Amino acid sequence: MTSPHGRLRDLGITLPTPPPPAASYVQTRLVDIGQGRSLLYVAGQVSRDGDQYLTGRCPDQVSVVEAAHRARQCALSILAQMEAAIGLDNVIEMSQVLGYVLSAEGFAEHPKVLNGASELLVEVLGAAGKHTRMALGTNALPFSATVEIAAVAVVRTG
Amino acid sequence: MTSPHGRLRDLGITLPTPPPPAASYVQTRLVDIGQGRSLLYVAGQVSRDGDQYLTGRCPDQVSVVEAAHRARQCALSILAQMEAAIGLDNVIEMSQVLGYVLSAEGFAEHPKVLNGASELLVEVLGAAGKHTRMALGTNALPFSATVEIAAVAVVRTG
Amino acid sequence: MTSPHGRLRDLGITLPTPPPPAASYVQTRLVDIGQGRSLLYVAGQVSRDGDQYLTGRCPDQVSVVEAAHRARQCALSILAQMEAAIGLDNVIEMSQVLGYVLSAEGFAEHPKVLNGASELLVEVLGAAGKHTRMALGTNALPFSATVEIAAVAVVRTG
Repeated sequence: MTSPHGRLRDLGITLPTPPPPAASYVQTRLVDIGQGRSLLYVAGQVSRDGDQYLTGRCPDQVSVVEAAHRARQCALSILAQMEAAIGLDNVIEMSQVLGYVLSAEGFAEHPKVLNGASELLVEVLGAAGKHTRMALGTNALPFSATVEIAAVAVVRTG
Repeated sequence: MTSPHGRLRDLGITLPTPPPPAASYVQTRLVDIGQGRSLLYVAGQVSRDGDQYLTGRCPDQVSVVEAAHRARQCALSILAQMEAAIGLDNVIEMSQVLGYVLSAEGFAEHPKVLNGASELLVEVLGAAGKHTRMALGTNALPFSATVEIAAVAVVRTG
Repeated sequence: MTSPHGRLRDLGITLPTPPPPAASYVQTRLVDIGQGRSLLYVAGQVSRDGDQYLTGRCPDQVSVVEAAHRARQCALSILAQMEAAIGLDNVIEMSQVLGYVLSAEGFAEHPKVLNGASELLVEVLGAAGKHTRMALGTNALPFSATVEIAAVAVVRTG
């Protein structure tokens, strides 16, 4: 049994500093659901590399492959927020992922883009990382980020 | 008291085979919330008829009436996923429906489109099928599907 | 300790009549999560002033400042729905806010717009009003409303 931190080490990943909220909200909220467990709501995380937003529309400004890499960056921010809130060892399972891709009209390959995030969650959390997903496109995202992802997880709090 | 399966029979509906995930995620996740009940998260279901995606934008490529029919197809997939996960007899109530319509700019009749899904949920599940809803438009959806709908329900698991 | 109703009085705010659903759905749903608490799902609330929808796209038809005011109107509707469902005194905390801004392509200031809603929730509910948030743009919303916001809260029901 490898732990999330062991898997991060094996993958050569250092989690980013959890980004602060970009405005008047908080990054995580815990809701006790009994038996020592809580729902953990994680705010929308936009694609970024450190302090720099990763911006532009798919596929005319940003390729599907590059957009998938940016979705992975969003998942890193989600992991970083969960680590800061509760510790990755306490993640029981990811319940829901909502993912939006900044899209040119007619773009239809959102699942490929969001696999960049989904696959990272499973690589780091194992079976606990498997989640339901809603993959969507949109014509406008905060800071013109290429991808934005929010999540709900079940975590150990007792 | 008619059961969901009795209502499906009365309506002449055979549930579709629950579509497999289109990418790296799962279709349903259960979260125990005590007293023999769980939250059931259902992944985004795109409009399809069997193996064929029902595609195109509302209202210039697909009429409001036809789009409402496609929203109903999404609701059939949601029912099929819930049946596979837990059995429709165990649905206590639908809590949340998130519905997106592939939209031309200026389109504003998303509620009419999504009623196609909402009404089916109530026809099949009765009062348990009543749900909060968020109806939205977007310029791009996976596979250029006309409608995509995700849901959260409360179900009996104990 | 000021109560939500005291804060509303201090702010000179009278909550609107909770808008009825625009179609085949319900405005709120409660899910018991034990210890006398429930999740309260609130349906998407579009920007309106009484019976009139506040419509148009940001920023070319509606300025960022005006759009933020309209986001605040959505938050008033959310508060009105929560008051009708359970009473604002029973709100333990806001968990999740999903906010969409009707956007011209390239618009990127959704966080500024949605702060209009987020700040009102904290002004009225205090620390309980702090929430995770997903701020998004889209090319089409019901009734061409400028903003639509849905929420999930934890409330006292026992």
